[in-house]
Amino acid sequence: MYSAFETKIFIRPDDIDMNNHVHYSKYLDYILTARYEQMKNNYKVSMEEFVDRGFAWVASKVEINYKRALLLPDKIFVRAQIGSIKRAQVFLNFWIIKEDKNKVAAEGKMIFTMISTKSGRPVKIPDDIIEKYSV
Amino acid sequence: MYSAFETKIFIRPDDIDMNNHVHYSKYLDYILTARYEQMKNNYKVSMEEFVDRGFAWVASKVEINYKRALLLPDKIFVRAQIGSIKRAQVFLNFWIIKEDKNKVAAEGKMIFTMISTKSGRPVKIPDDIIEKYSV
Amino acid sequence: MYSAFETKIFIRPDDIDMNNHVHYSKYLDYILTARYEQMKNNYKVSMEEFVDRGFAWVASKVEINYKRALLLPDKIFVRAQIGSIKRAQVFLNFWIIKEDKNKVAAEGKMIFTMISTKSGRPVKIPDDIIEKYSV
Amino acid sequence: MYSAFETKIFIRPDDIDMNNHVHYSKYLDYILTARYEQMKNNYKVSMEEFVDRGFAWVASKVEINYKRALLLPDKIFVRAQIGSIKRAQVFLNFWIIKEDKNKVAAEGKMIFTMISTKSGRPVKIPDDIIEKYSV
Repeated sequence: MYSAFETKIFIRPDDIDMNNHVHYSKYLDYILTARYEQMKNNYKVSMEEFVDRGFAWVASKVEINYKRALLLPDKIFVRAQIGSIKRAQVFLNFWIIKEDKNKVAAEGKMIFTMISTKSGRPVKIPDDIIEKYSV
Repeated sequence: MYSAFETKIFIRPDDIDMNNHVHYSKYLDYILTARYEQMKNNYKVSMEEFVDRGFAWVASKVEINYKRALLLPDKIFVRAQIGSIKRAQVFLNFWIIKEDKNKVAAEGKMIFTMISTKSGRPVKIPDDIIEKYSV
Repeated sequence: MYSAFETKIFIRPDDIDMNNHVHYSKYLDYILTARYEQMKNNYKVSMEEFVDRGFAWVASKVEINYKRALLLPDKIFVRAQIGSIKRAQVFLNFWIIKEDKNKVAAEGKMIFTMISTKSGRPVKIPDDIIEKYSV
Repeated sequence: MYSAFETKIFIRPDDIDMNNHVHYSKYLDYILTARYEQMKNNYKVSMEEFVDRGFAWVASKVEINYKRALLLPDKIFVRAQIGSIKRAQVFLNFWIIKEDKNKVAAEGKMIFTMISTKSGRPVKIPDDIIEKYSV
């Protein structure tokens, strides 16, 4: 069982589309922002450290359910929790939540794959990373 | 059985991220661009017409599998095909394809819901629209 | 002489381009984010209030000098100060500043024009707004 | 006297903001898109070639005047023309033009600086590049 972490996100005017809502692709940017923050602050292994070790993370799959529109003045945060880790892949569950009444605006899951920046091929996630992810 | 339509997409430098690939959220922008084009050119009912009639489309669900990285010089197109239509919702299957050797860079499905701009609530898709979608 | 206000901006991974720097157009998004924040928090007249009164703001001119690259881990803020107000226009001076050593990453000026959302034409900025801007 | 070149740009739904217009920062993305295209197709020296030679281009200054709003259905192109070349810098004039009646939606100028990717410092633009730019 992995821990869930939360990261505050600040909606920007350029995130808003012609319907006066946060544009649907921006939700993915919010999730990635949260993941970077949580890697640095919660898992204590920043993206820069991965790069230095010759690794990169790529998205392999995203499944997202949009529940409620987000407006510019909304205060939100992303909750993310690792579901499982298998070889080169991290299975992540996420929720985008409005601070007001804790209503879920979107939820879903995604798969990140660790690759070697040299070969571009997936590589088994090293044990020390798995350990750090197991907080 | 609904027709599949294809729309050419032009990758822009601002779509490229720190990994020198098209950023993962931009794929959703490409799909939406194709949908707008296909609504106007293939289904002959443009988004403006929906707006005039008091309707809007919102994304309710996206499921996308990333297969291959996209680079700035890549020539690509989006193929989209309605899978089914149920009450207020269109179930769309999509593929993002490289012109070179027709390789699939990403594929998935999404659900769009038609809402009333006035009430913000889902509304049953009118028969004349369903007919136009049945080309 | 108008007051200068500062707004913290959070750089997101999707702001980073192929050169590993904040993409040059995102600077404009940061400035607009700061302006919205300052309208609400410092001038006490939010964008929503303008919309309710039938007004909108459009950018008429931007002049920006890029001094230093911004990286994802950089902590930054936008300082903005009204230079003058003339009829329908606000002349704004801005600086994007790194918290570390207060180094200016970019600076410039822009002109915003208030328009009537109905006519789309510029309208003289009302006296009560000018007064609020004169803090 | 340098040649002017034109590049067609396709406005995407994600370029549209809450005012139903192309968002003001997207104009800079259109200009950069045109520049990449023109480097490859008109000057016959693609960005990839610069990268291979250890160079990169960064924006040093942008001055843009917004004349007319751009809407999603608008057909537009970017005209760009080098004004002068000085040591490490290219001074570029640009116009974003609506195909319908050739109306200028925005115009301005910008300065690009060639840097060494190794040092990050400006480098004098090589003579063979200046020659290619002199078409």
